[in-house]
Amino acid sequence: MDFEKQLQEKIAQIEALLQAYLPKEEGYQRTILEAMNYSVMAGGKRLRPMMMQEAYIMFGGTSQAIGPFMAALEMIHTYSLVHDDLPAMDNDLYRRGKKTTHHVYGEAMGILAGDALLNYAYETAAKSFLLEPENVNIGKALIKLSEKAGVYGMVGGQVVDVEAEKKQEVITKEKLDFIHHNKTAALIEAALAVGGILSGASDTEVQKLELVARKIGLAFQIQDDILDVIGKEEVLGKPIGSDARNEKVTYVTYEGIEKSKEDVARLTDEALELLHSLGKEDSFLSELFLHLVNREK
Amino acid sequence: MDFEKQLQEKIAQIEALLQAYLPKEEGYQRTILEAMNYSVMAGGKRLRPMMMQEAYIMFGGTSQAIGPFMAALEMIHTYSLVHDDLPAMDNDLYRRGKKTTHHVYGEAMGILAGDALLNYAYETAAKSFLLEPENVNIGKALIKLSEKAGVYGMVGGQVVDVEAEKKQEVITKEKLDFIHHNKTAALIEAALAVGGILSGASDTEVQKLELVARKIGLAFQIQDDILDVIGKEEVLGKPIGSDARNEKVTYVTYEGIEKSKEDVARLTDEALELLHSLGKEDSFLSELFLHLVNREK
Repeated sequence: MDFEKQLQEKIAQIEALLQAYLPKEEGYQRTILEAMNYSVMAGGKRLRPMMMQEAYIMFGGTSQAIGPFMAALEMIHTYSLVHDDLPAMDNDLYRRGKKTTHHVYGEAMGILAGDALLNYAYETAAKSFLLEPENVNIGKALIKLSEKAGVYGMVGGQVVDVEAEKKQEVITKEKLDFIHHNKTAALIEAALAVGGILSGASDTEVQKLELVARKIGLAFQIQDDILDVIGKEEVLGKPIGSDARNEKVTYVTYEGIEKSKEDVARLTDEALELLHSLGKEDSFLSELFLHLVNREK
Repeated sequence: MDFEKQLQEKIAQIEALLQAYLPKEEGYQRTILEAMNYSVMAGGKRLRPMMMQEAYIMFGGTSQAIGPFMAALEMIHTYSLVHDDLPAMDNDLYRRGKKTTHHVYGEAMGILAGDALLNYAYETAAKSFLLEPENVNIGKALIKLSEKAGVYGMVGGQVVDVEAEKKQEVITKEKLDFIHHNKTAALIEAALAVGGILSGASDTEVQKLELVARKIGLAFQIQDDILDVIGKEEVLGKPIGSDARNEKVTYVTYEGIEKSKEDVARLTDEALELLHSLGKEDSFLSELFLHLVNREK
């Protein structure tokens, strides 16, 4: 089967799984349940749960906790988007062509829907103990997931990014790396690491998976920055140089477009080599990584 | 030792515990760490962690997980206040005489600080597995905590309350009970239930603790509504009757002030009787409950 078809099938499977773990829209608090479901089902490639599942399959996982954790990770990713879109943050009215959550349900419900999703993520993941009360890997997976989602992970990256933007600060390369590592790569690290942990991979293997994720996450972010520049050049009809006026500082600002492209290729090669060194069947995951870093839009 | 002195000592002990579990203010994401610590250390009676600890002591708890869970519960309570105070919600600039978090750090940081606290609550609680990897009660406690904090608990209650206010809806008595049970009582239920769970109390005992918490939570809320009416009467210099113009519907609106007072007394009696029926030393917890429902401000 070709990659694109496999990808679409996996997305469909994950969306069915998400539906199964999302709350029923009933009771006095129905509005928030609708807002949660609307936010999660508004689209997306479901990359994070997909990567979690692939890592889990690679290591021959058998734990039933994988489903709840896949759903939890996507809920966390979604809550971060819902809050990012709020008026006090990026103030976006549309995402992927659909109205953002606060645009449909109002700002107060946007805040509460994000809160509800973040909480429900941990509620869902914790409930995998009902399936396997003695499974110590669930505890390890909860620690990993919460670390990567929090102030020493995704939220930490968001904060530094938001603060730099509010202050119109010209950030250093080191700070930019911090933002990318945390805002973008941390949830990808959570995906691969939790997949490994729940399938019983060793600590060393989990560390390697995390490093693979970090490299792919950075490559993905740099590619994003490259596409952004190319997109603007197309719109403006002329190349954008270092003169970009009042523009947000990105990886490309520091390294230039050629070096940035080289870095995407290098990070991807390193990630794939490290992935292969684990000695497992990883063909879909490898193709998925290549698909992500080679995308043209 | 008299009750008030005991109470102050316990508050001081819990504040020291919170300090120990809060993050260090360092790194690029320093602002959010400061905002988290500011929010949690801005005061309060620490009732929820105190009740958790008392339930734990009642049942002879020995698990080291109690500290992380006490801190986690206070973080969850605090995040809910931080988000409640936001401009899109209650738009409060001061709480307990101090500037609210968004008033100090800006609206974006207010949102993110709440998110960070909620996530850090689960991160802190989950890390108690590092102390006791095989303790199955930690998993049960995580399930209970997340249920009571989420859409079938506190957030559910907040949502219905916020929605009714935005719509200036005259809510039914049933809906009001739903709001009180979830918005106010759910985290008190979490406090007593988790304290019981972590000390190895039986399922039946935990259920009774939850029911005690529910009754005390409702009594506490009704007392709040009564004090609100009395406060307004004092300000206006005349009694407020059913003519209260455009006022928010409260328990007192439905039941009148005398029946409301009777209900506080009845619920408190029932809660204390149920608490005593557990056959444990509960003198401080009983006094704490009486202190809460008999307060005059």
